[in-house]
Amino acid sequence: MDDRGLLVGDGLFETMLWANGALVLAAEHARRLSASAEVIGLPTPSADAFTACAEAAVRRVGLEAGRAAVRVTLTAGSGGRGLDRPNPLRPRLFATATAYAPPTGPASLALASAPRNEASPLSRVKSLNYLDLVLARREAAAAGADEAVLVNTRGELACAAVANLFWVRERRLFTPPIEAGCLPGVTRALVLETATGRGIEVELVREPPKVLELADAVFLTNSLMGVRAVSSYCGRQYAKSALVAAIAASIEKPV
Amino acid sequence: MDDRGLLVGDGLFETMLWANGALVLAAEHARRLSASAEVIGLPTPSADAFTACAEAAVRRVGLEAGRAAVRVTLTAGSGGRGLDRPNPLRPRLFATATAYAPPTGPASLALASAPRNEASPLSRVKSLNYLDLVLARREAAAAGADEAVLVNTRGELACAAVANLFWVRERRLFTPPIEAGCLPGVTRALVLETATGRGIEVELVREPPKVLELADAVFLTNSLMGVRAVSSYCGRQYAKSALVAAIAASIEKPV
Repeated sequence: MDDRGLLVGDGLFETMLWANGALVLAAEHARRLSASAEVIGLPTPSADAFTACAEAAVRRVGLEAGRAAVRVTLTAGSGGRGLDRPNPLRPRLFATATAYAPPTGPASLALASAPRNEASPLSRVKSLNYLDLVLARREAAAAGADEAVLVNTRGELACAAVANLFWVRERRLFTPPIEAGCLPGVTRALVLETATGRGIEVELVREPPKVLELADAVFLTNSLMGVRAVSSYCGRQYAKSALVAAIAASIEKPV
Repeated sequence: MDDRGLLVGDGLFETMLWANGALVLAAEHARRLSASAEVIGLPTPSADAFTACAEAAVRRVGLEAGRAAVRVTLTAGSGGRGLDRPNPLRPRLFATATAYAPPTGPASLALASAPRNEASPLSRVKSLNYLDLVLARREAAAAGADEAVLVNTRGELACAAVANLFWVRERRLFTPPIEAGCLPGVTRALVLETATGRGIEVELVREPPKVLELADAVFLTNSLMGVRAVSSYCGRQYAKSALVAAIAASIEKPV
């Protein structure tokens, strides 16, 4: 009850998939957590401690044989007066696991009204400060959509609420750069690498959401669902895309 | 451990002073919590439940006869998948109290590098998403200052990390409007009312931090310390101000 993660959002998390009896891309998630911890000035657990904590959570709930969403949370621990951290700092690390079934079918998108603050370092770390995204999801749901699209304070596309955002036009792939205010998603990086490896031209662009209306296809990525196609955005419908399906298939091979 | 306040910052808080055997301005804090809960779509406790929870915290730690900082936290409770709230929602309300001694002497200020997102409704509610302010305080401390000054994404003054910001020039009082990205502070409102009542002209202005260098005096307000004078900002030193002392004295009368 006195943890700084709860009281002032002083912490970070990672969400990973457990499939085929193992964590998916655990080393990449441990690396991102370390990089994020450095940004906010928290000591970081070792990659071994990170993985052991995540695996123990899966075993605790008996999901070893299934497909699970595993969340590892790192907080600044207890203490300190108000906003100021205590010295010494005693971070807390804990993990939870729940059965996970990927969403069925493509996602419909709606534009969130509040922008993401790309000028804050927090826009690039997976911190516990997710209320703006909770509200974006609520707003999308109220508009009958599955997921929210967020722009930054300059009106440029940043990301979706729980995913990175990609779009395709004339067989070229587009996504916002990290500087536009999106998380450096582990699956995002994998898609960029895979696309480049397949000879698909990739561009990191700062564009207004209007470009989505001109896109041939749009898709979302995150560590749980991998690639999820988008069916519609603001009244614009997208047909199934062979390119998106190919990218989804190539990143879904067992790792 | 599964509370949404901890996991995704889905909650709010209020901090109040306990002095002379009673909560200070409890009704105003209960009202602000209600207004904030409406912004983020949480049901709000009654003013009676709010006050009872806060008072119980003071009694639990035996601080009835002293001066205490009382914090009441409201979270969206447990459950939901990822960012989406469960239905029905079962909010949690809890309070903590700690002995409180106001800071001694005036505060030195330093400018925080990351801006506050005035375009987000969260800039105007006291949510659990305080990591940007934790980082601003760290940055100020590293620069040898007591407190951070924050600008918004347009480079206009917004607030301090744990206080509202005021400045005085030629016997006129200035502070940023809520729309510039500051919290509607309970003490801020009291100062505005007091100053107006004393015939001091008050202006809500959107100005760059440079105006602080031209000010005769600068001060901070929050519910715990009331009015705290500022001694310096970015190398500019401020002399003691009779006007600031008078405002401080007039809001410190027992309520």
